Amino acid sequence: MYELGVVYRNIKRADRAAADGLAKFGSATVHEAMGRVGLLKPYMRPIYAGAQVSGTAVTVLLQPGDNWMLHVVAEQIQPGDIVIAACTTDNTDGFFGDLLATSFQARGARALVIDAGVRDVKTLGEMQFPVWSKAISSKGTIKATLGSVNIPLVCAGALVHPGDVVVADDDGVVIVPAALAQKTLDAAAAREALEGEKRAKLASGVLGLDMYKMREPLEKAGLRYID
Amino acid sequence: MYELGVVYRNIKRADRAAADGLAKFGSATVHEAMGRVGLLKPYMRPIYAGAQVSGTAVTVLLQPGDNWMLHVVAEQIQPGDIVIAACTTDNTDGFFGDLLATSFQARGARALVIDAGVRDVKTLGEMQFPVWSKAISSKGTIKATLGSVNIPLVCAGALVHPGDVVVADDDGVVIVPAALAQKTLDAAAAREALEGEKRAKLASGVLGLDMYKMREPLEKAGLRYID
Amino acid sequence: MYELGVVYRNIKRADRAAADGLAKFGSATVHEAMGRVGLLKPYMRPIYAGAQVSGTAVTVLLQPGDNWMLHVVAEQIQPGDIVIAACTTDNTDGFFGDLLATSFQARGARALVIDAGVRDVKTLGEMQFPVWSKAISSKGTIKATLGSVNIPLVCAGALVHPGDVVVADDDGVVIVPAALAQKTLDAAAAREALEGEKRAKLASGVLGLDMYKMREPLEKAGLRYID
Amino acid sequence: MYELGVVYRNIKRADRAAADGLAKFGSATVHEAMGRVGLLKPYMRPIYAGAQVSGTAVTVLLQPGDNWMLHVVAEQIQPGDIVIAACTTDNTDGFFGDLLATSFQARGARALVIDAGVRDVKTLGEMQFPVWSKAISSKGTIKATLGSVNIPLVCAGALVHPGDVVVADDDGVVIVPAALAQKTLDAAAAREALEGEKRAKLASGVLGLDMYKMREPLEKAGLRYID
Amino acid sequence: MYELGVVYRNIKRADRAAADGLAKFGSATVHEAMGRVGLLKPYMRPIYAGAQVSGTAVTVLLQPGDNWMLHVVAEQIQPGDIVIAACTTDNTDGFFGDLLATSFQARGARALVIDAGVRDVKTLGEMQFPVWSKAISSKGTIKATLGSVNIPLVCAGALVHPGDVVVADDDGVVIVPAALAQKTLDAAAAREALEGEKRAKLASGVLGLDMYKMREPLEKAGLRYID
Amino acid sequence: MYELGVVYRNIKRADRAAADGLAKFGSATVHEAMGRVGLLKPYMRPIYAGAQVSGTAVTVLLQPGDNWMLHVVAEQIQPGDIVIAACTTDNTDGFFGDLLATSFQARGARALVIDAGVRDVKTLGEMQFPVWSKAISSKGTIKATLGSVNIPLVCAGALVHPGDVVVADDDGVVIVPAALAQKTLDAAAAREALEGEKRAKLASGVLGLDMYKMREPLEKAGLRYID
Repeated sequence: MYELGVVYRNIKRADRAAADGLAKFGSATVHEAMGRVGLLKPYMRPIYAGAQVSGTAVTVLLQPGDNWMLHVVAEQIQPGDIVIAACTTDNTDGFFGDLLATSFQARGARALVIDAGVRDVKTLGEMQFPVWSKAISSKGTIKATLGSVNIPLVCAGALVHPGDVVVADDDGVVIVPAALAQKTLDAAAAREALEGEKRAKLASGVLGLDMYKMREPLEKAGLRYID
Repeated sequence: MYELGVVYRNIKRADRAAADGLAKFGSATVHEAMGRVGLLKPYMRPIYAGAQVSGTAVTVLLQPGDNWMLHVVAEQIQPGDIVIAACTTDNTDGFFGDLLATSFQARGARALVIDAGVRDVKTLGEMQFPVWSKAISSKGTIKATLGSVNIPLVCAGALVHPGDVVVADDDGVVIVPAALAQKTLDAAAAREALEGEKRAKLASGVLGLDMYKMREPLEKAGLRYID
Repeated sequence: MYELGVVYRNIKRADRAAADGLAKFGSATVHEAMGRVGLLKPYMRPIYAGAQVSGTAVTVLLQPGDNWMLHVVAEQIQPGDIVIAACTTDNTDGFFGDLLATSFQARGARALVIDAGVRDVKTLGEMQFPVWSKAISSKGTIKATLGSVNIPLVCAGALVHPGDVVVADDDGVVIVPAALAQKTLDAAAAREALEGEKRAKLASGVLGLDMYKMREPLEKAGLRYID
Repeated sequence: MYELGVVYRNIKRADRAAADGLAKFGSATVHEAMGRVGLLKPYMRPIYAGAQVSGTAVTVLLQPGDNWMLHVVAEQIQPGDIVIAACTTDNTDGFFGDLLATSFQARGARALVIDAGVRDVKTLGEMQFPVWSKAISSKGTIKATLGSVNIPLVCAGALVHPGDVVVADDDGVVIVPAALAQKTLDAAAAREALEGEKRAKLASGVLGLDMYKMREPLEKAGLRYID
Repeated sequence: MYELGVVYRNIKRADRAAADGLAKFGSATVHEAMGRVGLLKPYMRPIYAGAQVSGTAVTVLLQPGDNWMLHVVAEQIQPGDIVIAACTTDNTDGFFGDLLATSFQARGARALVIDAGVRDVKTLGEMQFPVWSKAISSKGTIKATLGSVNIPLVCAGALVHPGDVVVADDDGVVIVPAALAQKTLDAAAAREALEGEKRAKLASGVLGLDMYKMREPLEKAGLRYID
Repeated sequence: MYELGVVYRNIKRADRAAADGLAKFGSATVHEAMGRVGLLKPYMRPIYAGAQVSGTAVTVLLQPGDNWMLHVVAEQIQPGDIVIAACTTDNTDGFFGDLLATSFQARGARALVIDAGVRDVKTLGEMQFPVWSKAISSKGTIKATLGSVNIPLVCAGALVHPGDVVVADDDGVVIVPAALAQKTLDAAAAREALEGEKRAKLASGVLGLDMYKMREPLEKAGLRYID
C-alpha cells in the first residue's frame, strides 16, 4: 500500500562500483545471476535500440494523466541514478518528454524506466537519453494531484526500493536489491566467464546435448528417438 | 453513423500554408496547442522511425479484409494530402502495400494513416512513404464490398473530417480541424518559442520546481519532505 | 493433439531449390501465390528489421518456461533449415539467446520462428541470426519437461509440418507445404513478373481504378460520386 | 476535436416514441436496419445479463481518473435519457457507482454507457440500473479537471451526438442518429416481421442454402463438393 | 495451409458412444487423460454458464466479416455433431445468431465453437444452444467469399480434424482425435474413479503433501521451512 | 526480488476482528478508506458473481505451469485465511481446481486470489469457494519447480505481505496492510455511515452538484453553460 504525498530525501543507494559494474552484463545475465527473479514485465520496451545501462533507483509514484511528481523527483536525482516511475492505475499518456529529459540529464540521471507513456522520442534518441516505457504517446498531462517520491513501489510487476540497482538493455529491465549488488556482480562475472568457452565449443559444432550432458537425463525423462 | 457507398469529390481542405506549417512542430506540441485534444490512440505506430509530416486529410472507410476503397480514394488525392483510413470493424489485414503506395505517391499523397494493417514495409521504407498503422501483416485482402470516401469518420478513436490537418511523427498522430489550422499553428509556434529558453535553463541545472514555481502549490497540496 | 516426448529424426524436406528460391519473393507475395493462406498471426515480429529468409522447417514443441527441447532440436538441424518453435501454453519467457544461436548457426540453421520470447537480441543482431518471436524477455527458462521434435504443430495459428518451407521477412511469416513448394515458387515468380509493369503504370499516374478495370464493378455495386 | 469546459443545456432529442420503440428490436437488428453501421466496439459489455434498453443520448467527456463531469451531466438528464461517457485517454478506473446511479435514476436516466470502468456492480444489479462498460474496477476517482457535457464525442469507436438514440442489450450497443430514428424503427420492424417466418422454416429443417437461394451463387463462386 | 472452396461430404466421425460418453468428464479431466494436450486457448468462453457437452466435429473455415459458409456447413451437420468454426484472420464480428442456431439445432447440432464473435446471445441462452466464442458482437456479416467445410483447421490454437471429438464446458474446449476417443474415455473414467476417494481424504483434512507423498521430493528440491 | 524455495511458517496475521469486519464494506469503500491505494489490477475477476469476503493473506509464489507450491501452501492455511498466489511470469494455466479447493476449504481458507488461471469453476461455484483470477483454463500443471510460501510478493500489480487483510467482491480485490486494519475498518465504517444519508438525498432528486457544493469550484475552473 502506498503512502501518498511524501518525498523521502535520504535514501541509501547501493554501492556505487557494484551498481555501475552491472551494466556490462546486461539484464538477462544479471537476472540469472540472482536466481531468475527481479524482472519487469516484457511489455517494457526501450524507445531506441542499443542502450545498456545500470544505476541506482530513485522512485516516483504518479497519478493517471498527471506528471507533477516527475518535477519533484528531478530534485532528488544524483549522478548515477535511474528514475523508476509507476502510476496508480494503467495509463499510457506521455508523462515525459525532451524538457524533463534535459533536466534529468542535467541532474545526472542515466535513464528513465516508466510504466506509462513518453513522448518526444526522436529528440530523446538524439540526446541519447534512454527510456524504457509501456507506450509512446503525444498525450499531455496535467499537474494537479500528489503521488510520492522514493517510496518502495511496484513497477511493471516488480517491487523496487529506492537505492536498488536497475539494469536495463534491449532485453528488458531487472532490479537488484541494494544489499545484493556486489554478490550479484560477482555471480554475473563468474557466469560470463564461462560463456566464452561455451560459445567457442558450440561454434565449433559441439552440441549443448553433449556439452551440458543432457542425453542421460533426457532418456530418463522418457525421450524417444524415432527413425 | 456512416453513409456507405459514397464518394465526396469536393471537400474543403484546410489552408495549405497552415497545413504545411504544422509538420515541424510535431504531434505533441500541436496536441498541446489545441488544448490537449485530437490524438489518435497510441497503438498507431509508424512503420519506420524518423518521419514527421503534416497534410490535409482525405478519408476512406474500409470493410474488413477488403481494400477496394483504397483504389477509389487514390483518385481523390491531391498533392499535400494524407490518407486517413478506418475500418468498420477491428481488422489487422495488410490492406496496403508498395503498389498502392506507388499510386498514392504519384498522386501527391504524403502519408497513410490506417487503423488496420499494412505490408511491404521494407519497400515502403525504401520509397520513403511513411505509414502509421495498427499492425503489419502479409495478409492479402479482397475487393468486394463498398465503404465510402471523404465522409467524416472515426480513426483510432479520433473524429476526422475530410480537409482536416493531420500531423504525424514518432510520437503519434493528431488531427487539427480545418477551421483551427492557422490558430493552432500560431499557438504551436508561440509554445515552441518558449521551449528554447526553458531547455537552456533546465540544462543549466535550474529545476522545473523553481522555473514553473511549483513549490508553493505542492506545499498547499500537502506534499511533505522527510529526511 | 500433440505426441509428447518424441524426436522424429527422418523428415522429408521440401525440394531444396524451391525452398531456397522462395526467399526473394517475400511473405506477402508467397501468401498470395498460395491463394491467401498459410500465414502466422501478425504478432510474430522480427527482432531486427531487414532480414528476408526461406528454408525448411524443423519443428519443436516446448513446455512453458522450459527450453530443454531447443537443445534437442539443435541436433536435428541441417544446413538450410529454419526452426519453428511452439509452446503448449502462452508464454513470453526468453527461451533462446546467443549461446543457442551460436549452436543453431553452427548447425546451418538460417533462422528461428518462436511463438514465445527470446533474449540477447542485440547480440543476435550482431550475429545476423534472424528471429521472429512474440516477445523479447530476459526471463530465463529451466530444463525439466519433455516436448517433441519434428511433429506437426500449430505455431502462432498456422499448422506446420516438418519439412515445409518457411518464408519470413519484415511483413511476417508464411508456411508453404513441402508438396506445394515448386508450384508456389512458379506462381510467386509469375506474380512478381507482373508487378514491375504495374508499378511503372501506377508511378506514371495511371489509377488502379483504370488499370484493374474497377469502375464498372464499383458502379454495379452501387458506388455514388457526389460533387 | 473536443471543446473542453462547456455544457450544452439545450439539445434536440430524437423523437420520443421512436427512441422508446427501438428497445424491443435489440442492437443486432437495429444495426442491420441501419445498413450495418453505428456499433460501439465489442469490448463494451453489460455488467449484468438480460437488460435491453433504448433512450436518448446525453453525452459527457471525462478526464482520466476524474469523474467530476458525471455530477455535471446528472443535471442535464431528462427522463428517457441514456448517458454516454467517453474519456480523453484509455482509463479503467471506477468512475461510477451506486450513489451516482441513485442520482441518475432519480433524474430519469435509463442506463449508462461508459468507455471506462464502473464499480458497486452488485448494488447496481440490485437497483436494476444497467451499465455497459469497458471494465469493472474499485479504483476511485478525483474531481479536478473539466471535460464537457453534450458535445458530439467518440465512445468506444462510435460517433455519438447528443440526442441520438442508444440501443443496448446483451449483444452490445448501437447508436441511431436522431434524424434516422423513425426510419430505422420502421426498417427494424419490417426486418423483424420476416424473421418469424424464417425461423419456423429453419426449425422445420429447411436449409438456409435453399431458403436464401444460395446454391447457385455458391456454385458460381466455385464451391466444390467432394464425396 | 488451407484448401479453399471445398466441402467434404463424407467424413469419418469418431465412435458415437465414446464421443457421447466424454461429456460428463469435462474438458479438464479429458485434457489430463490425453496427456495434457488438445486445448483451445482460454480466450474461448461460453456465452452462458453451465453447459457441458461433447460431440463430433464438423469444421468450417470462414472469411473475415463473412458468414456464408455457416449456411454451407449446416447441411453437413448430423445429429450429435458440434460445429467448429475458424476464420482466416482475427475477427470479432457476430457471424452467428438465433436464426442459424435454429437451423443448426434442427439439424441435430449440439453446440458451436467459433474463434470469432456471435450475437443474439440472450435468445441462444433461452434456446439452450451453447456456444463457445472469442467475442460477443452485434456486428453483422456479408455473404461474398468462399471458405471451406470439413477440412482440418486450426481453431483458437488447436488443430481439429473433421470427426474428432469436441468436449466443452465452463473451463474451456478440448479436442480428442477420433482414433483416441475410446482410449481417452477409458483414461478419463479411470482418472475420475480415483478422484472421489482423494476428495474425501482432502475434505477430512489430509494434506496433498502427504496424500501425494510430496514431502521427500520437495526436500530434495531444496525446500526450506523457516520458523 | 523474490527468495525462492522457502516457506515461512510463522507470519503475523492482522487483527482477526478487523480482518473479518472489513468484508461487509466491500473493495471500493475499503480502497477509498485507505486513501485510494492497494488495489489489484481490474483484470482480476471473480469466477462467480456475488461473493464478498475478507481474510488474512497467506502468500504463494508459483512457477509457470507448475502448481506444486499450492500443495505446500495448503499446510500453512489457518481458518480465516485467503490465499494470494502470484507467478514468476505471465501464465494462464489452470493451477487450481476442485480437489485443491476441497483441501483449502478443509483447512479453513475463505478464498483464493490468483494472478493466473483456475479450472473446475462450475464445481467451485457449487462448493461456494470463491476465486478471483486472471483466467479460466482447463490446462493442467506439473509439479517440478520450487517457488515460495509466505514471502512478500506482487500479485496483479499490488504488493502483498503475509498477514495483510484481503477484501474481495464483484468490484475487485484490495489489500490492507496488517498494521492498518483497524484504522481502515474505522474509516470505512465512518465513510459508510455517511452514504445512507447521501443516497436518500440523491434519490429525492438533490443533485451532487449541490450536495457536494461543486458549482463554485466548477465555475472557478472555467465551466461554461451554453443555452
